[in-house]
Amino acid sequence: MIYIGIDVGGTTIKAGAVDEQGNILYKHSCPTGVERGYEAMIRDMAELGFSAVEKSGHTREEVKAIGIGIPGIMDQRTGIVPLCTNLNWHGVPILEEMKKYTDVPVYVDNDATVAGLAESVKGVSAGCSDSVFVTLGTGVGGGIVIGGKVFSGAHGVASEIGHMTTVDGGELCSCGNRGCWERYASATALIREGRKLCAENPACALMYAVDGDPEKITAKHVIDLAKAGDPGCSALFANYVHHLAVGMRNLINLYDPEVIVLGGGVSYAGEFLLNAVREALPKYVFFKTMPFARVELAQLTNDAGIIGAAMLGR
Amino acid sequence: MIYIGIDVGGTTIKAGAVDEQGNILYKHSCPTGVERGYEAMIRDMAELGFSAVEKSGHTREEVKAIGIGIPGIMDQRTGIVPLCTNLNWHGVPILEEMKKYTDVPVYVDNDATVAGLAESVKGVSAGCSDSVFVTLGTGVGGGIVIGGKVFSGAHGVASEIGHMTTVDGGELCSCGNRGCWERYASATALIREGRKLCAENPACALMYAVDGDPEKITAKHVIDLAKAGDPGCSALFANYVHHLAVGMRNLINLYDPEVIVLGGGVSYAGEFLLNAVREALPKYVFFKTMPFARVELAQLTNDAGIIGAAMLGR
Repeated sequence: MIYIGIDVGGTTIKAGAVDEQGNILYKHSCPTGVERGYEAMIRDMAELGFSAVEKSGHTREEVKAIGIGIPGIMDQRTGIVPLCTNLNWHGVPILEEMKKYTDVPVYVDNDATVAGLAESVKGVSAGCSDSVFVTLGTGVGGGIVIGGKVFSGAHGVASEIGHMTTVDGGELCSCGNRGCWERYASATALIREGRKLCAENPACALMYAVDGDPEKITAKHVIDLAKAGDPGCSALFANYVHHLAVGMRNLINLYDPEVIVLGGGVSYAGEFLLNAVREALPKYVFFKTMPFARVELAQLTNDAGIIGAAMLGR
Repeated sequence: MIYIGIDVGGTTIKAGAVDEQGNILYKHSCPTGVERGYEAMIRDMAELGFSAVEKSGHTREEVKAIGIGIPGIMDQRTGIVPLCTNLNWHGVPILEEMKKYTDVPVYVDNDATVAGLAESVKGVSAGCSDSVFVTLGTGVGGGIVIGGKVFSGAHGVASEIGHMTTVDGGELCSCGNRGCWERYASATALIREGRKLCAENPACALMYAVDGDPEKITAKHVIDLAKAGDPGCSALFANYVHHLAVGMRNLINLYDPEVIVLGGGVSYAGEFLLNAVREALPKYVFFKTMPFARVELAQLTNDAGIIGAAMLGR
């Protein structure tokens, strides 16, 4: 049997034909074209998916299920996407719309959830029954796999790990609350703190790295300077790792997974990040004598969206 | 079939014969006698359990499983209780010890987990597939039910919700970290803040209620004065509810259950607590337009330990 995996982002729709083991047989992509409205986007998703199957040498009849990863939330009870900011979707009846093009079962879930599932099938957490995937990007997203299956709770919102409060009364979040984890553990947090550093010390190495324009600061600038031993960025990175580890502590206390997988932009810091987190985390773990989740870096990066989406229907 | 449920506390061992539906057919108890060591305690558990079955009019042969709720942690991989402070247990091989008295399967779990399971079988969350039980006592414990089954994670520590960080850098916890939820949401937190209130304002109503001795303050004193409209205790209680709701927000973001059940000593505040929490929680919920967990008070109180322990083996 063949599965179609569709990874929808704000700029690109990717689709692939995927086998039972999570191998991509053929993949291609097209521009998302957000301005066209959801009907055109969903038509492209269906066409792109089925043409990937044909180009992989298989037939439409062999397709067992279609999975779609979206940068937003899916209401599994209604089959409607209530909100997907990057696609400008509000209350989009995605399942009903897909029915125009196919009778094959369609599964939709959040992109972080889908990436977590992909890692648990073909990536670094393969073979693990319970894993938590954490995307460290503009925000912080989560993909929870329990008993080998995507866990999204009773109302489909169970993986909003970026909006757990770790610093009550802290930084204001876009969600209206204060002290959400993603205010401290995202790439955005590194950028914000980097700008503060430059404001306090305009002669710092970070300011030099961005040609005197703090608006140009990226997480990579901060991390590269921390790697190079710059005192300001090292302190900033250590504080970032503290907050990352505090949130991971909470993930361990609540989900107790076999593995926590770090993905997203900040995870490209690689071993430097991994080693720092592995060193910090044991301090915060509750049961010092019990084994707890190991920490790993995501492996699949670009293909995670297609593989994970396809595996939603397995 | 009959199930034996055993509820072990620091002062009393309770045991009951329970039917398939979670009804207690007969129950009785004996002193725990912590000073005697674990062998004597475990022998009493077995004897008390089987004699409850006989007194219920059934035979030993009808017993399908024995469940035990302990005020500590069970390592399900090894069958050993690594730590149970109230029983003075360190590395107790509870399953091996029970084998001296019976060949019936024995299941052991944390008392909050067991109480949560009881509520989901016979109590306020009956019929719910996904529920989170929160004990608001000396500390804060959790009993997580996912898909109708106890969820305790890959290493058996998944329900340590009291030790999730909600106020990073806040009050020092017995676990060595700062800002654990239970520092803010337990009865102990109400007592600590009550004492602070009395230190700041020795002429306050709370000081009067405890005859001038802040050591006598209980959570009930604080709550009763808040109910009565005392400004100091009302502010203190409002702050308590804020912290309780922040942690419940995290439970919703991570577990997204159908219901959150409040149990333990503080929950005896009843509707006063329930109404305050129900009012506060929506402010903190991430998806304002999606349904989220309803909040309820525990129903079973004293029998929860026996019923839930028995249901571990169902």
